[in-house]
Amino acid sequence: MSFRPPAAPDRFAPRFAELATFMRAPLAEAITDADIGIFGIPYDGALTNRPGARHGPREIRNQSSLIRAVNHATRVDPFALARVRDMGDVPFESMFDIEATHEAIARFSGDLVAAKVLPLGIGGDHSVSLPLLRAVATGGPVALIHVDAHTDTWDSFQGSKFNHGAPFRRAVEEGLIDPTATIQIGIRGTQNAAEGWDYSESCGMRVVFCEELHDRGPQAIAEEARALVGDRAVYLSFDIDSLDPVYAPGTGTPEIGGMTTHQAQVLLRGLRGLQYVGADLVEVSPPLDNGTVTSLAGAALSYEILCLLAERFAT
Amino acid sequence: MSFRPPAAPDRFAPRFAELATFMRAPLAEAITDADIGIFGIPYDGALTNRPGARHGPREIRNQSSLIRAVNHATRVDPFALARVRDMGDVPFESMFDIEATHEAIARFSGDLVAAKVLPLGIGGDHSVSLPLLRAVATGGPVALIHVDAHTDTWDSFQGSKFNHGAPFRRAVEEGLIDPTATIQIGIRGTQNAAEGWDYSESCGMRVVFCEELHDRGPQAIAEEARALVGDRAVYLSFDIDSLDPVYAPGTGTPEIGGMTTHQAQVLLRGLRGLQYVGADLVEVSPPLDNGTVTSLAGAALSYEILCLLAERFAT
Amino acid sequence: MSFRPPAAPDRFAPRFAELATFMRAPLAEAITDADIGIFGIPYDGALTNRPGARHGPREIRNQSSLIRAVNHATRVDPFALARVRDMGDVPFESMFDIEATHEAIARFSGDLVAAKVLPLGIGGDHSVSLPLLRAVATGGPVALIHVDAHTDTWDSFQGSKFNHGAPFRRAVEEGLIDPTATIQIGIRGTQNAAEGWDYSESCGMRVVFCEELHDRGPQAIAEEARALVGDRAVYLSFDIDSLDPVYAPGTGTPEIGGMTTHQAQVLLRGLRGLQYVGADLVEVSPPLDNGTVTSLAGAALSYEILCLLAERFAT
Amino acid sequence: MSFRPPAAPDRFAPRFAELATFMRAPLAEAITDADIGIFGIPYDGALTNRPGARHGPREIRNQSSLIRAVNHATRVDPFALARVRDMGDVPFESMFDIEATHEAIARFSGDLVAAKVLPLGIGGDHSVSLPLLRAVATGGPVALIHVDAHTDTWDSFQGSKFNHGAPFRRAVEEGLIDPTATIQIGIRGTQNAAEGWDYSESCGMRVVFCEELHDRGPQAIAEEARALVGDRAVYLSFDIDSLDPVYAPGTGTPEIGGMTTHQAQVLLRGLRGLQYVGADLVEVSPPLDNGTVTSLAGAALSYEILCLLAERFAT
Amino acid sequence: MSFRPPAAPDRFAPRFAELATFMRAPLAEAITDADIGIFGIPYDGALTNRPGARHGPREIRNQSSLIRAVNHATRVDPFALARVRDMGDVPFESMFDIEATHEAIARFSGDLVAAKVLPLGIGGDHSVSLPLLRAVATGGPVALIHVDAHTDTWDSFQGSKFNHGAPFRRAVEEGLIDPTATIQIGIRGTQNAAEGWDYSESCGMRVVFCEELHDRGPQAIAEEARALVGDRAVYLSFDIDSLDPVYAPGTGTPEIGGMTTHQAQVLLRGLRGLQYVGADLVEVSPPLDNGTVTSLAGAALSYEILCLLAERFAT
Amino acid sequence: MSFRPPAAPDRFAPRFAELATFMRAPLAEAITDADIGIFGIPYDGALTNRPGARHGPREIRNQSSLIRAVNHATRVDPFALARVRDMGDVPFESMFDIEATHEAIARFSGDLVAAKVLPLGIGGDHSVSLPLLRAVATGGPVALIHVDAHTDTWDSFQGSKFNHGAPFRRAVEEGLIDPTATIQIGIRGTQNAAEGWDYSESCGMRVVFCEELHDRGPQAIAEEARALVGDRAVYLSFDIDSLDPVYAPGTGTPEIGGMTTHQAQVLLRGLRGLQYVGADLVEVSPPLDNGTVTSLAGAALSYEILCLLAERFAT
Repeated sequence: MSFRPPAAPDRFAPRFAELATFMRAPLAEAITDADIGIFGIPYDGALTNRPGARHGPREIRNQSSLIRAVNHATRVDPFALARVRDMGDVPFESMFDIEATHEAIARFSGDLVAAKVLPLGIGGDHSVSLPLLRAVATGGPVALIHVDAHTDTWDSFQGSKFNHGAPFRRAVEEGLIDPTATIQIGIRGTQNAAEGWDYSESCGMRVVFCEELHDRGPQAIAEEARALVGDRAVYLSFDIDSLDPVYAPGTGTPEIGGMTTHQAQVLLRGLRGLQYVGADLVEVSPPLDNGTVTSLAGAALSYEILCLLAERFAT
Repeated sequence: MSFRPPAAPDRFAPRFAELATFMRAPLAEAITDADIGIFGIPYDGALTNRPGARHGPREIRNQSSLIRAVNHATRVDPFALARVRDMGDVPFESMFDIEATHEAIARFSGDLVAAKVLPLGIGGDHSVSLPLLRAVATGGPVALIHVDAHTDTWDSFQGSKFNHGAPFRRAVEEGLIDPTATIQIGIRGTQNAAEGWDYSESCGMRVVFCEELHDRGPQAIAEEARALVGDRAVYLSFDIDSLDPVYAPGTGTPEIGGMTTHQAQVLLRGLRGLQYVGADLVEVSPPLDNGTVTSLAGAALSYEILCLLAERFAT
Repeated sequence: MSFRPPAAPDRFAPRFAELATFMRAPLAEAITDADIGIFGIPYDGALTNRPGARHGPREIRNQSSLIRAVNHATRVDPFALARVRDMGDVPFESMFDIEATHEAIARFSGDLVAAKVLPLGIGGDHSVSLPLLRAVATGGPVALIHVDAHTDTWDSFQGSKFNHGAPFRRAVEEGLIDPTATIQIGIRGTQNAAEGWDYSESCGMRVVFCEELHDRGPQAIAEEARALVGDRAVYLSFDIDSLDPVYAPGTGTPEIGGMTTHQAQVLLRGLRGLQYVGADLVEVSPPLDNGTVTSLAGAALSYEILCLLAERFAT
Repeated sequence: MSFRPPAAPDRFAPRFAELATFMRAPLAEAITDADIGIFGIPYDGALTNRPGARHGPREIRNQSSLIRAVNHATRVDPFALARVRDMGDVPFESMFDIEATHEAIARFSGDLVAAKVLPLGIGGDHSVSLPLLRAVATGGPVALIHVDAHTDTWDSFQGSKFNHGAPFRRAVEEGLIDPTATIQIGIRGTQNAAEGWDYSESCGMRVVFCEELHDRGPQAIAEEARALVGDRAVYLSFDIDSLDPVYAPGTGTPEIGGMTTHQAQVLLRGLRGLQYVGADLVEVSPPLDNGTVTSLAGAALSYEILCLLAERFAT
Repeated sequence: MSFRPPAAPDRFAPRFAELATFMRAPLAEAITDADIGIFGIPYDGALTNRPGARHGPREIRNQSSLIRAVNHATRVDPFALARVRDMGDVPFESMFDIEATHEAIARFSGDLVAAKVLPLGIGGDHSVSLPLLRAVATGGPVALIHVDAHTDTWDSFQGSKFNHGAPFRRAVEEGLIDPTATIQIGIRGTQNAAEGWDYSESCGMRVVFCEELHDRGPQAIAEEARALVGDRAVYLSFDIDSLDPVYAPGTGTPEIGGMTTHQAQVLLRGLRGLQYVGADLVEVSPPLDNGTVTSLAGAALSYEILCLLAERFAT
Repeated sequence: MSFRPPAAPDRFAPRFAELATFMRAPLAEAITDADIGIFGIPYDGALTNRPGARHGPREIRNQSSLIRAVNHATRVDPFALARVRDMGDVPFESMFDIEATHEAIARFSGDLVAAKVLPLGIGGDHSVSLPLLRAVATGGPVALIHVDAHTDTWDSFQGSKFNHGAPFRRAVEEGLIDPTATIQIGIRGTQNAAEGWDYSESCGMRVVFCEELHDRGPQAIAEEARALVGDRAVYLSFDIDSLDPVYAPGTGTPEIGGMTTHQAQVLLRGLRGLQYVGADLVEVSPPLDNGTVTSLAGAALSYEILCLLAERFAT
């Protein structure tokens, strides 16, 4: 009998074959299927610049078929360590309303957390980190490792304080993150005022501008982050625009002078063994991509993040 | 509770959201779930020219999210008439061996036929029509409506008689199709010899060169096809290169002077009410596409074919 | 002295040179500079599908440098008939709020109308037609010629009744258009229900599906539209997705089987001599384009619309 | 022994293999090898708008590998009728000097004519037709069939009267073409003044605007051209921008509302049996193309022109 | 009143909105408006290889909307230090004549210099540096910092000694630059002879091949340049092909092994405080770009250069 | 007389002109013409993932026109040291049969070797290295320098042990390479098991993962390779996917975190003076490229390899 239910793709099939789920993980049949739940957040209604991140989850799923199981650098196989499932996409009912959409994301993520599923959200614009933090920071403010070209601690834009440049300012205000246990890595790019940079630093965040990362190297930055976070519950947020525009042209707000994917890999692999409570990878905008380089980078770095999460399940 | 098993996408969600299944049909859990089974055939090992059709099923699934339920011209809703399911892709174990691969396709399709599921195969190169015909023509030769720029009745190329230019010659030889109940529509393009054109005509097929289609119009051709086929069991094979290269640049063997998508829609809608036993749409090669126009056309014309198949289930 | 203020580009300079204003029209220094004001509406916050139309005005300005003064078919030179100015873009202050944005558009357009400037708005998603109609229909409901793949008379989506699929339903409800003096041309594409099509017809609009346009030809449709509208004040709304996806891949909701640009030209040129009170061209999404074909078509058809408006100033 | 001199590609090899010569014709070893010489003119120094036609010959050679020998519509095999050779490219020594470059083209073409080789030049910008006409019109003015969006009978631009908008005005002045035996087909697009259109008509040329071609059909226009030209020596010049921009986006001056490739094929096939003394196909600009649709159209229409030339050698 | 003259775009508007001027600077109304004048030079008639740089100014203007005011690394805000204006494009009247075009550029630039406006020219091919140097070196030879893959001190090509590979050889001969106060940075790529490299070194220029830059780092090279130039009047010329082809595919003569944008930023920021008399950024060719990465890099590096120029106006 | 046989392109012509041969080398008229024979292997029938490498030789020929004679870093001119010829493509007669195709490649390469022509094969997928090694290793196992993201020492896939992931395992088994004189450089990327990595190391190969290359630098790796190989006969195989996906998006199996072209140049230039018996550059897939960056990198690195081979002919 040759039929095989397609909801669980064959990892050993040719990589262009089978349904596109995140890294060929099976589709969850129930929320309790998973130790780690990867899910899409096809929402870009809170961005201030070039759109398209709503298409991110689809294309990252597509490109992630190129990823296999074992990490060549760490020899971690996340699929052997944990039950990894594709949970589908967050369902929306009010996509024109930022706050209602954020509630839907918080509810979906909260259900995962309640079911003891570690959430890995694939965006979508960066505003989605706020509701994710609301879901995971139920026990008090968490530490934050935030990789990005922008501090995203700016304030209102065009009348909304929930835009994609503001989530971490809101998260401080809502007591979701501890700014003194927060590190922002890769920051760069012009601004019309220094206000967001200043906010981060004034509330105690460690801001690593990308020039410092280039000078000291990603391994040193990773070590500093590890020391800062220690054994606290920590959330990891990775904005694809932390990469240089040639590695990630498909994003809304590209800034030259960014990280290479090699630097990002070294950075992430330097962050093993922390107490992750969730993570996201955001701001991949396929319509702005050159071919699929951004989506491929997004998929491959999501895999590195998945490895970090999966090691929590190592025995 | 916001979690919802993603194997059955929400047709009313925003069209960029949710998993990419064919036309948002649910993934089959069992082969008996379906009246009509749409499945991918990610194989292009038998083509003689530019590759990439192995990526066709993925991208047609992706673009088919733009398709909704009701046909504006006929008001048919195939999802209301029949249980339509995405059956996944044909699994391959010997992708470097044309004949073994064809056996796998015939076996998969044959299982569907045995389970009384009407097969709609999405290619893949055109060689896949041969094993599909082997699966459906179990009761003797069927009639064939074949839309294509090429007759695909050429003979061996580079030592293989199962290449993508030969399936219908093989099908005649194997007694799978009745050439006198076969019509080939849209034929054009240079050849190094007239041999394939001559073979088709000499064995009794009706060959409609594309110039004739432009002159008489697709409605007249459809009527001729209906008259030729009558109430016989009929298979429909649609090669995307029947469309002009501006409508289908993403194909291995483009030929200028082809059909518009409007002509293809009129042609297909003119073929309602026949006794279809199966169908395919082939030769969409996403790496050769300009944007997604070819995959979108492939998805939208697959939908028109689905409507034809679904009317068999109208009561 | 070689310096020349760049706000008034030289129409005779090489077409790749000089600032990109709409069709090389001078930038307005004051609102009273113009008989016809072309302006951008860089807003796509009300769309339900693929984004990018916010980038439409920029790229249509860019491509419109390829347009020169005299229409080869009609020998109309709109720049000789009227003072044509680029008025810049509608300024937004609340881009995350559909209704506030619509108010800004209505205010900007209303200022033009008050200054006796005929408005030609370049979108942007199709929701912008509603505030434009609010600005021009101050003397009672106007007639409407609406060229589109979709009737845009659907109702709420994701909680908003002001989404880009609904403007003309709202316009009927608000008494801005007379449905019995409304014609919708080029309609096609699947829907999840027949409800929008039915609404249009039930309230008295003439709905010309694209198949009818292909069969009867655009000249016949234009004549019918002229007869329907007569000498009433009329608004013209042109959605680029009325064109086939090969002519307009750069749009959010492409539907195969659409118009060619030649058909669109014949249609528009058939609509000369009416009492236009305003017009728009919408839904060009440059990030989704193949090269610049959609923006070029948008620019060239905007020019045809400009010719229609300019003839109102012929003496 | 498997080595085979690559200067004569194998027409039966897979179409992606072997060196790219024009339609896989052997490279000429001597000028006397050929009855028909196809050669490249990689020059775009006389154009007034968007560049890139200098890359035309390369990419048309590349795409022309997709062309095989026998014409499906006419069953002509030009390679069986005549010795067809790729003559390489016109060598330039003064590419910044239009007039010196034109002399080089005239010299190269003149050598072919002197060797009784029928020249088929592949441009390059349209200015190259002038030196080609100088080479072929040695016995007095020839008739001209000119397919284009523009009459190219405009006058000086930016100080040069040899720009790509002027060749046929110069050709009239130099006595190379007989305007009363000249037909210009496909004309359209805005201009800043009517002057070029008027020049053509005032000196006796038949100007067929593209609207007329759409209305009467290409077969009727071909018949008119045949009647006009009769048995005179005739030159055929085909500007790819006669095609609509979706068929030929890769050109410097696209104008919507143009011909389809099917119309162009019908037009050219209607021009069989004339006394051709030479031909060109110009203005393919690969850097501006969407994928390879323009180059493919250029290759396939060059093949149709080759068929016309080759029939002069039929016995 | 919502109308606002569009010649002065709102820097705080969404970045996809408003007219595209260089970095959203206001369009100059008079030449005396500016301390620094950014202007386009849409000319590529002197290049020897792949064209398209004539489109550079347009697309750099377009992408430069992504640039905001404050430099994150230096905290310089050039718009606060100086009156920055977009001066439009150099008008041409003889674009087919290199020398006449160079005169037009020299005249335009000279007018700026005479009005005490610091010129920042955006090319265009690299030949335009010669007339710019003629305009600024009125008081004797200036120092030169030249960032490029090529020394551009080659001699005549195809009969012109003013081609884009020769400007700095001509500038030495004309006494516009002092070769002993000249540094060329980033040099690499094959040549048919060593002659240009040898010319630079033999006349006293410091030639930094790109391998040396990779080995010693851009900061060390910047320091060497500062020491070489001292407090002399200095001109800065930046050819985008100094960047690696993945950072700048959109250029006529790409050479692998080039600089990253991060290296370019470090290099430029290391050159603060010099006595700049003018600058240019050249050879961005949008038709050859992958997406917009080259134009974006060109815009962002133009901004870094603008910061260098603006500090001359710091008090 | 202006005609010049095009089989020997003019290296000094503008780089967009003339036929596309490898680096403008003359086409061989006889196998004995050459000291070094560059030839295409347009075959991708053995790959397991994304296709298109069959188009590699064509496009590398095309882009290689941008390469000139003298290496700026080493001042080597390979065309002055050796007779370099383009030998055309390996002819195939059984392209659907991997083993028969490999025999054709071995035969073609063997003929070159027999004629004392040093072979430089341009792929095609990586399986082609096996038959090339069969042709050159006639005197016993050779040393191997293998630059790649993958060890290509995996075993059967889909029933074939000659797939593109296995050539060097087969080469060990067939005694064509000495694994203890083999170094594999740049290895990285996920795998479903560690088996291929383990095979390489267990049989004595030196495996340099890409992280080590980034840490120690390419010069150190080159020195290690030189020490390992010594004065043995050595074959060099360069898979373009050793480069990072932004430098080589046009390849079937991209893996982030790879080499830059600068690193590849340093690595290759560090390998001068070895006893090369042949080389290849493989896996360039133009349909998957972004623009032409991959093909350009392939051409430029083929040139670096050519320089290495040519120095064997220095006297």
